[in-house]
Amino acid sequence: MTTQDIANDLVELCKEGKFAESGEKYWAQDVLSVEAMGDQRESRGIAAARGKGEWWAANHEVHGVVVEGPYVNGDQFVVRFKMDMTPKGGQRTTMDEMAVYTIKGGKIAEERFFYGG
Amino acid sequence: MTTQDIANDLVELCKEGKFAESGEKYWAQDVLSVEAMGDQRESRGIAAARGKGEWWAANHEVHGVVVEGPYVNGDQFVVRFKMDMTPKGGQRTTMDEMAVYTIKGGKIAEERFFYGG
Repeated sequence: MTTQDIANDLVELCKEGKFAESGEKYWAQDVLSVEAMGDQRESRGIAAARGKGEWWAANHEVHGVVVEGPYVNGDQFVVRFKMDMTPKGGQRTTMDEMAVYTIKGGKIAEERFFYGG
Repeated sequence: MTTQDIANDLVELCKEGKFAESGEKYWAQDVLSVEAMGDQRESRGIAAARGKGEWWAANHEVHGVVVEGPYVNGDQFVVRFKMDMTPKGGQRTTMDEMAVYTIKGGKIAEERFFYGG
C-alpha cells in the first residue's frame, strides 16, 4: 500500500467513527504520538497510543465528527478532525484538530496533533 | 515572539492576501520548502521560495482564498488554504492545501505543502 492508500483507508475508518480500529490497523509497534499540550507531550508505543484513545473515549461524549482529508506529501499526510463533543462534567464544545501522520514500512511511525482556536 | 505569535501573524497576512509578504517576513535564509509533487520537490533558501511564489502568482489567477488556522504544536503549526483559482490557460478550480511550518529562531526553517483530492 502506498501512503495515499493508507491515508485514504484511515480517513474512511475515521469517517465511520472507527478511531480505535484505525489505530490498531496502522500504528507501528513503537509509534511516537505527540500532543500539543499536557505534562507528557510525547508517548511511545502502541500501548500508550491505545491508552490515550481509551482515556479520551471514556472522558468525552462525541456528538458528531467531520473528517477532512487526507492531504498527502511523500510519506506524510494531514487529516483534519472537527469534533462536536462534551468533556465529562464540562460544556459542549467544538474541537478543531489537525493530525500529521508519518508512515514507515506501511505503519504509522509518528502521529502529531495540532489544535486551532 | 512565540510560535503561536508568528503563526497568528502569518495567518493574518495570508488572510489579507499578503502571501509574498508573509514569506519575506518569516523565511529563514536557508528555508527548506517541500512540495508534494514535481521534478524538484525540495528547494533550499529564500531565493528559491520567493521564486516559487512568483512563478505561482504569474501562472494563476486567484478569485478567492479561505485561510484556516493556525493549528499549533510546539515549534510547528498547520495552516489550511482553500483557493478558488484559474491556472493560466486552464479551468477554474479549487485547490485545497495544508501547509506545515517549522519555526526555528523566530523564522520559518521548513515549509511543507500537502494537497487534498
